Amino acid sequence: MSTACIIVIGNEILSGRTRDENLGWLAVELNKIGVRLLEARVIPDVPDAIIKAVNACRKTYDYIFTTGGIGPTHDDITASCIAQAFGVPYVRNREAEAILRKNYGAQNLNEARLKMADMPEGATLIANPVSAAPGFIIGNVYVLAGVPRIMQAMFDQFKTTLKGGEPMLSATISVFLTEGIIAEKLTKIQSDFPDVEIGSYPFIRSGRLGTSLVSRHTAPARLEQVTASISQLIESFGGEIAAD
Amino acid sequence: MSTACIIVIGNEILSGRTRDENLGWLAVELNKIGVRLLEARVIPDVPDAIIKAVNACRKTYDYIFTTGGIGPTHDDITASCIAQAFGVPYVRNREAEAILRKNYGAQNLNEARLKMADMPEGATLIANPVSAAPGFIIGNVYVLAGVPRIMQAMFDQFKTTLKGGEPMLSATISVFLTEGIIAEKLTKIQSDFPDVEIGSYPFIRSGRLGTSLVSRHTAPARLEQVTASISQLIESFGGEIAAD
Repeated sequence: MSTACIIVIGNEILSGRTRDENLGWLAVELNKIGVRLLEARVIPDVPDAIIKAVNACRKTYDYIFTTGGIGPTHDDITASCIAQAFGVPYVRNREAEAILRKNYGAQNLNEARLKMADMPEGATLIANPVSAAPGFIIGNVYVLAGVPRIMQAMFDQFKTTLKGGEPMLSATISVFLTEGIIAEKLTKIQSDFPDVEIGSYPFIRSGRLGTSLVSRHTAPARLEQVTASISQLIESFGGEIAAD
Repeated sequence: MSTACIIVIGNEILSGRTRDENLGWLAVELNKIGVRLLEARVIPDVPDAIIKAVNACRKTYDYIFTTGGIGPTHDDITASCIAQAFGVPYVRNREAEAILRKNYGAQNLNEARLKMADMPEGATLIANPVSAAPGFIIGNVYVLAGVPRIMQAMFDQFKTTLKGGEPMLSATISVFLTEGIIAEKLTKIQSDFPDVEIGSYPFIRSGRLGTSLVSRHTAPARLEQVTASISQLIESFGGEIAAD
């Protein structure tokens, strides 16, 4: 199974001004196609931070997806930093330039917009059906826009080319029992099903404590088996089932 | 000004099952007290990943805040991993044990719940006014619960002890002009105000493209100056102001 890492580039997330939506969306989509997301980082619009994070992560994971920082303004520095990370020239991509020229027309094209065609040498374009300016791929790094709708449209362009695997399926049972009550028996179930990833997530709803028990595996039949065991555990404590 | 990093520990975020709320909340709170959040990482419930991330980050930033993985179930491994990261024994904290004994009473206390008193040797407790089981501090690492309400209550226990600074203030002007139109003049404003961090964030609302221009500085007077320049820029293009 392929592994992936997301690098969210943007001061606006770290300052708390904007809540990131891209991580959650990409996590769901990667899971659907059987690519396992193993890390996400949020870093500022600072060259050294971008270069270091990209170089650390691209050696560790099969796929790296960056979001943000590829627009026309002074704070859009992702493409030039990726070129530095790969040690290749930062050049005007002729194919990207042609797309921008066609989209904006001679009248509306300016230097700032043309900057969106500047990329690491050797980059392959990712089409942007929303607002034209493309993302790009270099090595195992996929450089995407930060605006969720554009990022999502870009991801759809290449997702069928990613080497995925069987999607990880999950079965969730939520119950108004606290973790401390069920922990010991749950540990027993986890050791009975070592191939299933069982997660226990406490919650508070309307002042009531409860736990969501999430089992993850690629085989539906295996999930049914573990779910049956968890259901028995819950019944043994007379737990009240909660909505997921 | 102090710097900070957040480490969100949890498979449930990376699988897309749960959308993280803690990063956004902590980003806002840290900003309020003038602690600068420079990185966030989301990592899985895997010992090696936790140990490596904690050790990499605690050397780089003044404060590290971890969220998640300190409950009583088999997948709660944060405390033992932090002990390994610091190279200290993982021991039962007597003060934490006393809190748990008092909270649960002899009848409801079990081994799983007592596990929540196991911590790195030398840890200082962080009170948990919501559900008793404490978080802890070791070195510059603050180990917090993953449930947002509990994490927030824990943060409130120690936030006045953090060495902050002047809060970073921000002024936002949103306008229905695309980035490409204003980029060149905005670059000029950024060079006129090198001490102000000016961010440009494109958005799409009801199919209309626009840009939020965010200026950040600690001095209100300086923000007023830069805002005046940005307003002039917008007027020069006849831009329609949008709600923030």
